[in-house]
Amino acid sequence: MQLKNEIAQQPAVIQRLLNDGQDATRRAAAAIRDFNPAFACIAARGTSDNAACYAQYLFGARLRLPVMLATPSLHTVYKAPPVLSRALVIGISQSGKAEDARAVLNDAREQGALTLAITNFDDSPLAQAAALHLPLRAEREFSVAATKTYTAQLAVIAMLAAALAEDADMQSHLKALPGLAEKTLAYTDAIESWAQAYRESDRLTVLGRGYNYATACEISLKVKELTYIASEGYSEADFRHGPIAVVQPGYPVMLVAPRGESLAGLRDIRATLDEKGADILIISNDDETLLLGKRALALPAIPEWLSPIVAVMPGQVFAMQGAIVRGLNVDQPRGLSKVTITE
Amino acid sequence: MQLKNEIAQQPAVIQRLLNDGQDATRRAAAAIRDFNPAFACIAARGTSDNAACYAQYLFGARLRLPVMLATPSLHTVYKAPPVLSRALVIGISQSGKAEDARAVLNDAREQGALTLAITNFDDSPLAQAAALHLPLRAEREFSVAATKTYTAQLAVIAMLAAALAEDADMQSHLKALPGLAEKTLAYTDAIESWAQAYRESDRLTVLGRGYNYATACEISLKVKELTYIASEGYSEADFRHGPIAVVQPGYPVMLVAPRGESLAGLRDIRATLDEKGADILIISNDDETLLLGKRALALPAIPEWLSPIVAVMPGQVFAMQGAIVRGLNVDQPRGLSKVTITE
Repeated sequence: MQLKNEIAQQPAVIQRLLNDGQDATRRAAAAIRDFNPAFACIAARGTSDNAACYAQYLFGARLRLPVMLATPSLHTVYKAPPVLSRALVIGISQSGKAEDARAVLNDAREQGALTLAITNFDDSPLAQAAALHLPLRAEREFSVAATKTYTAQLAVIAMLAAALAEDADMQSHLKALPGLAEKTLAYTDAIESWAQAYRESDRLTVLGRGYNYATACEISLKVKELTYIASEGYSEADFRHGPIAVVQPGYPVMLVAPRGESLAGLRDIRATLDEKGADILIISNDDETLLLGKRALALPAIPEWLSPIVAVMPGQVFAMQGAIVRGLNVDQPRGLSKVTITE
Repeated sequence: MQLKNEIAQQPAVIQRLLNDGQDATRRAAAAIRDFNPAFACIAARGTSDNAACYAQYLFGARLRLPVMLATPSLHTVYKAPPVLSRALVIGISQSGKAEDARAVLNDAREQGALTLAITNFDDSPLAQAAALHLPLRAEREFSVAATKTYTAQLAVIAMLAAALAEDADMQSHLKALPGLAEKTLAYTDAIESWAQAYRESDRLTVLGRGYNYATACEISLKVKELTYIASEGYSEADFRHGPIAVVQPGYPVMLVAPRGESLAGLRDIRATLDEKGADILIISNDDETLLLGKRALALPAIPEWLSPIVAVMPGQVFAMQGAIVRGLNVDQPRGLSKVTITE
């Protein structure tokens, strides 16, 4: 199974980024500082879009840089691109073949924006279109469901934020990341029994907030891609505004709730969900919070801003095990191909 | 049934906005032109967030103004707001009681941003917090599921865009809107039989693109709030990147596909979905496209940029009828209250 191997490779990929990626990161950070963007705009789809969501919170909280997610159809369908001349415009794509992300970067570069690509291939069209490229150094990913390239995208974004913030604390936390990723994967053995317990479930909601809103969306996307069940990721704040109506006794809700500023809100919605009789799964590194779920999976201690890089891993394993217990093809889900070129 | 009345009131609400809202719109447009924002940032949740998504495309395509959706937790949870001093910052909330939207506006105003509220109550906290207020003039909405306040939000946004663009063509199309809304509602009688046909369905995907990405999200939210089924809205481009794996023979997919630049992409994915055996429902005003669905509902002729205001209406009726045939409470879905105050 390629997927299993690729999930297991994640600590090594992050280690390689930390070993070999520092120079490129520092150069990109210097160029961005020189440019002094008024805001950032990120073009991405699918899993890469969830990485963009992480950048939105990290760049916002640590650099005070407002981040918008691009609207590619304004570039490709309506041919009416917004004015991005004062923006740092980032394209994220595993393959680097996303045509619409490239169109956003091309328009932005013509307007005078600073462009940056984050892809797994130096010679990819997206990398070639951008002024700067930060490679994922993840080696080839064979499985259609992206795992190691997703956490590599997050790690590249985290390294860039640390370089831009010139923050020694952030740098030292980054160094611990490969070990923490290793530890997290070692904790996921229990997930096989989760997958067995939910093999008949046809719905799942995954909730996070702030930094881990991206994690909720990515876990939900992995589960949907691999098991085909109706799985949705939400910010817990958005979930209260309507979607919570779907919850009835026995409805499974996974909470991504590591220690940090967002924990209080997740614990609050957990209480509400508990009253509604929801079946609650918890991913956390807070001992007290781990006791509040029907099932709980521990994460190692890690600062909240870095936690998305490890918190997604139990979800990746849950999605993979969910496909295995359902007898589905784990490496090649139906109807998907590794490279999706949308215009 | 309050909901039925409120859906029916939509043409009159839009007419009232056009009659009484022009002065306030012109004043807001003048203030925005004076301020000359580098970008816009919109804070909203739930249905109001779908209105924000419409503004993202309309302001982008017609005014070339980049629009980001706010990340309220950076303001309320992390207390690390991004720099919005050069932005037009808009808060959208039916009740005007959304605490997190107010926090975004307060931070932005302190930083020197231009702030605008769009709410249904002049004396609401959000209206009071903003430098400018554009009221929805929708009278009180009793039903928990927002309908007339959603289309009023879109109409306010469309009027503001037309005033900012100083475009006589846009203005004259706006004048026709109440009549087109009336016509659209008259076409929705057939929806009762749709609701009967799908009364056993537990999943639905709604697809749109560009201007009508908002419509797909809003129809899907209404269906979820009112019938509790697993309903999801996507941009057709995002759907190809993973979620399409869920489609198997008989899986219901609704396409919001009015005439315009986005139609080609919707027709393209329809062909793919057809090959997968999906059960396709179409909302369109393109005669040829209407023939391509198992079920189809006609919209009147309308420019694409205004089409979201009418295209959502068959979806509102579908959600309501779906609740009725399932024997559910239409005005007061379980677990929801009219005002949701998230921080």
